[in-house]
Amino acid sequence: MAQDGPKIAFTGRLLMIGCGSIGQGVLPLLFKHIDVTPDRVLVVTADSRGRDVAAEAGVAFREIVITRDNYLDVLGPLVEPGDFILNLSVEVSSLALVRFAKDKGALYLDTCIEPWAGAYTDTSLTPSQRSNYMLRENALALKRELGKGPTAVIAQGANPGMVSQLVKEAALKLAADLGKPADVPASREAWSKLLHELGVKAIHIAERDTQVSSEHKKPGEFVNTWSIDGFVSEGSQPAELGWGTHERHMPPGGERHPAGCDAAIFLNRPGASTRVRTWTPLAGSFHGFLITHNEAISIADYYTLREGGRVVYRPTVHYAYHPCDDAVLSVHEFAGRNWQEQETQRLLMDDITSGVDELGVLLMGHAKGAYWYGSRLSIEEARAQAPHNSATSLQVVAGVLGGMVWALENPEAGLVEADELDHVRVMEVMRPYLEPVVGAYGDWTPLEGRESLFPEDIDREDPWQFKNVLVV
Amino acid sequence: MAQDGPKIAFTGRLLMIGCGSIGQGVLPLLFKHIDVTPDRVLVVTADSRGRDVAAEAGVAFREIVITRDNYLDVLGPLVEPGDFILNLSVEVSSLALVRFAKDKGALYLDTCIEPWAGAYTDTSLTPSQRSNYMLRENALALKRELGKGPTAVIAQGANPGMVSQLVKEAALKLAADLGKPADVPASREAWSKLLHELGVKAIHIAERDTQVSSEHKKPGEFVNTWSIDGFVSEGSQPAELGWGTHERHMPPGGERHPAGCDAAIFLNRPGASTRVRTWTPLAGSFHGFLITHNEAISIADYYTLREGGRVVYRPTVHYAYHPCDDAVLSVHEFAGRNWQEQETQRLLMDDITSGVDELGVLLMGHAKGAYWYGSRLSIEEARAQAPHNSATSLQVVAGVLGGMVWALENPEAGLVEADELDHVRVMEVMRPYLEPVVGAYGDWTPLEGRESLFPEDIDREDPWQFKNVLVV
Repeated sequence: MAQDGPKIAFTGRLLMIGCGSIGQGVLPLLFKHIDVTPDRVLVVTADSRGRDVAAEAGVAFREIVITRDNYLDVLGPLVEPGDFILNLSVEVSSLALVRFAKDKGALYLDTCIEPWAGAYTDTSLTPSQRSNYMLRENALALKRELGKGPTAVIAQGANPGMVSQLVKEAALKLAADLGKPADVPASREAWSKLLHELGVKAIHIAERDTQVSSEHKKPGEFVNTWSIDGFVSEGSQPAELGWGTHERHMPPGGERHPAGCDAAIFLNRPGASTRVRTWTPLAGSFHGFLITHNEAISIADYYTLREGGRVVYRPTVHYAYHPCDDAVLSVHEFAGRNWQEQETQRLLMDDITSGVDELGVLLMGHAKGAYWYGSRLSIEEARAQAPHNSATSLQVVAGVLGGMVWALENPEAGLVEADELDHVRVMEVMRPYLEPVVGAYGDWTPLEGRESLFPEDIDREDPWQFKNVLVV
Repeated sequence: MAQDGPKIAFTGRLLMIGCGSIGQGVLPLLFKHIDVTPDRVLVVTADSRGRDVAAEAGVAFREIVITRDNYLDVLGPLVEPGDFILNLSVEVSSLALVRFAKDKGALYLDTCIEPWAGAYTDTSLTPSQRSNYMLRENALALKRELGKGPTAVIAQGANPGMVSQLVKEAALKLAADLGKPADVPASREAWSKLLHELGVKAIHIAERDTQVSSEHKKPGEFVNTWSIDGFVSEGSQPAELGWGTHERHMPPGGERHPAGCDAAIFLNRPGASTRVRTWTPLAGSFHGFLITHNEAISIADYYTLREGGRVVYRPTVHYAYHPCDDAVLSVHEFAGRNWQEQETQRLLMDDITSGVDELGVLLMGHAKGAYWYGSRLSIEEARAQAPHNSATSLQVVAGVLGGMVWALENPEAGLVEADELDHVRVMEVMRPYLEPVVGAYGDWTPLEGRESLFPEDIDREDPWQFKNVLVV
């Protein structure tokens, strides 16, 4: 089991909001890393899911739907200075809670930037306004407004989160393998210079989940290995990607945002309808979904290199997600229903019979072609680490634990993104839960095997153009 | 069990080429309909599949790979005047065998128009030359060349085949329901006039197969409920559709053929990568694959109405196929491998645990909107009819039996297509194997539920444009 070292000192109380697949996965591990007793932990969540897991952990459990209208009244009496708010819910605004935590003098962490209910699919908003880009821009504005103060880590799960730390570790390994060993860069600018010098044109968060249960998906059922609410929401948002400086073909339906950092574009279509070519070492080449994720934007922005105000380098960054097979079928059915959600949900967990969640970062365009670096966690290895987890949830839980430890050790950092954390420290906490952590080079490019049957509209001069990656 | 009437007289021998899922499904039923004894039946096939089923039927079984080079030598001694050649193989040319059967004075039937091995994916041919349109044009040329003589029924399985008979039955039912009851039209022109008067703009062969086995698809495995070789081949051909006179938007990559009847277009992409919106009564709205099929072209051509040489009416016709869930996953993986076939195949048959193959024709654009008419055969009902069948194979077998009976009763018709058969007689033979045969109206259109999240490029003036059906 992971974590044999000393626990992190913590004298406050922990308020955990939400107790779905990730909350239930975190609870058994919290006490291994943080010096907190169950009587100082409270779960507030919208429904009864996780009640049994909370009881098992000896943790109080309150069923309350938190809304824009009641959150101050409900949460106000529950939080004091020095407490920790861990937001693992859906439909509870991250930024409202960050502001609330700051006012209370409490620390904060979540695994994405969540809006209040309905915002992901509110068609009175433009697609740009429904994007993760805009959610992040709002977070950056709040960061500037709040300045230093109680640490609030946003978007630190597996992805977003852990993958930002993987990019850094992968870049240093790639540098060594290319004969240009580098010290850990000390600034954001130094990191972007390193990636630029390595020649990384594009980064996929490349994931292939092969977990499977004994029971097939039924018609009218959405099946997945983690929050179905979460996946349906992000899959309904516009497809988004960090937009690299090497790109020369705007994709069909692609648009820049009207304001903000300009590190990303969006497509006028749901990510769940948008397929991309990618590669992982175990799975080989496959089609994943370009589901929007915070890290696609935050990583692209973090590694943007400017000279005299002018952008001279940025990698293209996006998610390329092959969820478990029953989730692929669920997405196919969801699309065929014109994005009317299925009647029932089924979270795969204790009934998973086999499979691996191969989740990593694929750094492309450098002298060695493509380098995948990530976690190859199997369901068996996940279960050996912790109860109430799948391989998928444990990867998220690892990111949460790594981020919480960092926040407790750096309690006055203000609002920070995953890319800003000390990746060495966070990896140290996460690694035991992610093993095996594997790096592998591949000679794959998105041009491999193309035009085998029909002529295709591709850019042969630069394999790493997004035009070549998008499946049309 | 079906067929309690007298058997059809037949004094010749039956040569069955191929013994895959359909051949094995036909064998137990042949003797119920046709007055033939097992000692007069011979199976010649490329591999050992079906050897046990042939043995069970008391039928001789020879394992020989038939090629362009050896077919005359191998088959020559096996066929005499008055015999019947039933071609249920893959990679054995239908037209070569039709010519051979004519020379021998034998009857002939197959379930598609099959070329010699490799032609479906021979990229030295243009996409048009690899199309079913061109295979059919070659068949039509042979029909003209051969004239009257021993009957050769081509493309008479479920689809192509049975669905051509369903279109006729559906049109008559629709006419009655619209208050315009019609006698069975006596000519092709009368049939096209009827469909035109009914206002049918488009016809989908709309299929949703929900059959499932106890075992999930594995990575690197192609799973289906009927010939995987057959499905992979047709899925690799260009997407093709009969092109209706109401269409006003050529789809992306769409092209007319350089010669021939001009009833159809093709898309410069594999059908297995082409999704379309459709509807069946049990499944509701869903995305199917636009897999090319002979019937998409033959039906569109059959119902083309000309006045003074000018085409005044033709429906759009195409397949909209949702295979069983494990086949959807197989297609998804096949696409991700850039059409490099998976290492292993698994035909679902005795291990199917539940499911229905909802296979019918969806007549659209008339005064009542959309009318689906077809077979809703379940695996349980299929098994009650015959061993060695799934719901899918039995629907094909029904078409084969119906076509064979018609050929034996009309032995001098020359080369004929499914649309030219007497649908009343063929339906009489098939119906017991297809039950329940169901008709249902729906208020579905391809515009239903559109633009729920994003603006889409659609034609609101005419819901029945193919532009609205194609998923982009």
